Amino acid sequence: MATPTAAYSIRLRVRLDNRPRSLGRLATAIGEAGGNIAALGGFDVRGSHLEEDLVVNCRDEAHIEEIRGAVEGLQGCEVLELLDRTFLMHDGGKIEVLARMPVADRDDLSMAYTPGVARVCQAIAAQPERVHDLTIKKNTVAIVTDGTAVLGLGDIGPEAAMPVMEGKALLFKHFSVVDVFLICLDAGSVDAIVETVCRIAPTFGGINLEDIAAPRCFEVEERLKELLDIPVFHDDQHGTAVVTLAALDNARKIVGKKMGDLSVVIAGVGAAGVAISKILMEAGVDEIVGVDRKGAIWAGRDDLNVVKLWFAENTNPERREGTLAQVLPGADVFIGVSAPGLITAADLRTMATDPIVFAMANPDPEITPEDADGLARVIATGRSDYPNQINNVLAFPGIFRGALDVAATSITEGMKLAAAKAIAASVTDDELSPEHIVPSVFDPKVAPRVAAAVSQAAIEEGVVRLHRPPQP
Amino acid sequence: MATPTAAYSIRLRVRLDNRPRSLGRLATAIGEAGGNIAALGGFDVRGSHLEEDLVVNCRDEAHIEEIRGAVEGLQGCEVLELLDRTFLMHDGGKIEVLARMPVADRDDLSMAYTPGVARVCQAIAAQPERVHDLTIKKNTVAIVTDGTAVLGLGDIGPEAAMPVMEGKALLFKHFSVVDVFLICLDAGSVDAIVETVCRIAPTFGGINLEDIAAPRCFEVEERLKELLDIPVFHDDQHGTAVVTLAALDNARKIVGKKMGDLSVVIAGVGAAGVAISKILMEAGVDEIVGVDRKGAIWAGRDDLNVVKLWFAENTNPERREGTLAQVLPGADVFIGVSAPGLITAADLRTMATDPIVFAMANPDPEITPEDADGLARVIATGRSDYPNQINNVLAFPGIFRGALDVAATSITEGMKLAAAKAIAASVTDDELSPEHIVPSVFDPKVAPRVAAAVSQAAIEEGVVRLHRPPQP
Repeated sequence: MATPTAAYSIRLRVRLDNRPRSLGRLATAIGEAGGNIAALGGFDVRGSHLEEDLVVNCRDEAHIEEIRGAVEGLQGCEVLELLDRTFLMHDGGKIEVLARMPVADRDDLSMAYTPGVARVCQAIAAQPERVHDLTIKKNTVAIVTDGTAVLGLGDIGPEAAMPVMEGKALLFKHFSVVDVFLICLDAGSVDAIVETVCRIAPTFGGINLEDIAAPRCFEVEERLKELLDIPVFHDDQHGTAVVTLAALDNARKIVGKKMGDLSVVIAGVGAAGVAISKILMEAGVDEIVGVDRKGAIWAGRDDLNVVKLWFAENTNPERREGTLAQVLPGADVFIGVSAPGLITAADLRTMATDPIVFAMANPDPEITPEDADGLARVIATGRSDYPNQINNVLAFPGIFRGALDVAATSITEGMKLAAAKAIAASVTDDELSPEHIVPSVFDPKVAPRVAAAVSQAAIEEGVVRLHRPPQP
Repeated sequence: MATPTAAYSIRLRVRLDNRPRSLGRLATAIGEAGGNIAALGGFDVRGSHLEEDLVVNCRDEAHIEEIRGAVEGLQGCEVLELLDRTFLMHDGGKIEVLARMPVADRDDLSMAYTPGVARVCQAIAAQPERVHDLTIKKNTVAIVTDGTAVLGLGDIGPEAAMPVMEGKALLFKHFSVVDVFLICLDAGSVDAIVETVCRIAPTFGGINLEDIAAPRCFEVEERLKELLDIPVFHDDQHGTAVVTLAALDNARKIVGKKMGDLSVVIAGVGAAGVAISKILMEAGVDEIVGVDRKGAIWAGRDDLNVVKLWFAENTNPERREGTLAQVLPGADVFIGVSAPGLITAADLRTMATDPIVFAMANPDPEITPEDADGLARVIATGRSDYPNQINNVLAFPGIFRGALDVAATSITEGMKLAAAKAIAASVTDDELSPEHIVPSVFDPKVAPRVAAAVSQAAIEEGVVRLHRPPQP
């Protein structure tokens, strides 16, 4: 059974008869119904009654109703208010746009707006590259989605995708002080997405593509990288890939294997799976076999789309065929970006010694750490309630911070490798253990480290905007 | 000669010999060079020297260099730093995106982002109208421009337009707490603009079109109003029109004339001129003659584009022809949205008694208040350094606030008229005078009044989104 979580938490206000032990009975009733009381306000005595505020974590929406029923069923207890804290938090959206300076008087206005602003416009018209200094372009990234592959929810459309994109904007700002605005597109084709992003690009210093379905996402990213002179980054691919590489680099140290000696099986050959494979190859892994719903991807399988065709030609040199269970034996590493419960303890027993298992399907992994216990030497998931959370929030804030800091024109493979190295190095040798191969997502030191490494790599690779004129 | 202004202000740091009267000599030198010292920091004594910070308002960029020269020419005085305050203010842009809640721990993250956010996405997917409650759409307006008619600068392109759009975003936030994001489009046609705005519309609760050249702007607005179910408003047209109507309504009270009796000549038949004419007709003005560079617009002139054709058919019932000087005699009101110095004192002498003159060309009016002094009974301009500034910042923040507050689906003529009435009524009968026909742009009471009137009008006209579900 799922654990009660803040994601399904409620704020309850109840009125109780003012009698001994009534609060105790309330707490007991909630506990017996499986709710976790996360916070308890001081109660107000109102004559013959008490009023009390509680925050209760529940398991799911049905469980919220069970809790309500349990509280309402208590003698001498009335529910005055029950608010769903997740919905409350989203009311009116999660981000806002604020001024960076006062507009209190005519002088402020005559500099920030007319007539002074005309001077700044003219400076940019005369020297177009100054838009990178004199406007929000310097620090602003667009999160662009068409809402076709949102979390595990699928094609829910641009409006329903907004809460996720707002959440992403929060993370960008919190971890790397990048300003982000979301552009949720009502665009039905690759052409429409590419065309629209090119048209809105003047405002932005970078484009973060998000939750666009595969294989569409590959073409969108490729064409935009070609057309635009600002960084374009598909986070579902490269954010995940960077953090996976960082985690694998640390995991292989624990089992004492070299990157070039690893044999890796990847379940799921969508956006994330392809990008993970590419970055692992960049990092020196030679032996990768990808598996989709129909089995291993090999050069010769006759049902492959263009991306999987590329994948077949560049991985699985031995052209291994068959199911996941058939290709897993002897593998050092299993990486899952596929579906819950895909592999079993029996599968793990067929792997090489000291198996490394990254079971990253969301919200439920390919195998739970409980089921892998004692069989996998290192196990990581995408979840916050197990050790070793592979979460791309470790990557994207620092990557864009680093790119914007040097006004990079793109995000190269070298910049991504540098980011992975910086994330891996954020776990010190002392800290490194099977339960600690990646830093905490809340570690505030990670993003600045990643940013510095990415800036440095951009400079070395010569993808930074030159000739930025000084301020007058 | 122009007056020194904050728009051309500098921050100077100078090192002076520590001798009696050296500060006085510095101030005298700046004053003699025509600079206005707007602020003087406390000086630091550094042994045989003083260091001093000053803010000096100058007339233009050449004058900044004159001031620098005057200070550098002083014996025992060295300029340590000279910064252009307008450029300094624009460094890195003028707005930022911030979180509306903390993301400090796992519980915050599990509500604002995964897994909790998925619940909110699903709620919107199930009930699409909830996007208006559960996302930033509720309070967020896009400022959209293609950069073809920016201030008086013309077609400077989307990048160079950005500082103006950022300034507008500041004003929106300051006066009405509307969140605004700018979308500066690299789009070469009406079709491209319309298509792009439709595609990005899911994120926004309203679209404010800005600085798009006429006649393109008319078609863009018309088509977007047809295609979208959120308010679309071309500020250069309707913001200006609303404030002009408000000002005229108060000006006519001063001269004791009725709206229906006014004869109005409008110079400039672009975006603003057309919209002003339309709203004046809505408000009961019957006699309007528009004049462009080639003279009066009349039904029969054979060089009219589609918009001017409409204009010809709906104004100038007597089909008056000729130059501005030929149609102005006998007019009660002159409204200029055209070019500097277009009319003279002699022209004003031909008008009806108590002429009302709105000389709104920017930055230099069709006739200066000095030249009109004693001839016009009421004169207004677009400038902040004369009385009666006709500035659409009096209109747009309140109009969008009012529209968003009731989740309006459009901005109707009735809502614009209500806005004009609210602006006019913000000048009380006691305050009303030839020098005070519109409220100050800094009057914080105006936007809330306009918002309330606009919300009310939207409700009365039935253009508000119904069936908004309650919070769970």
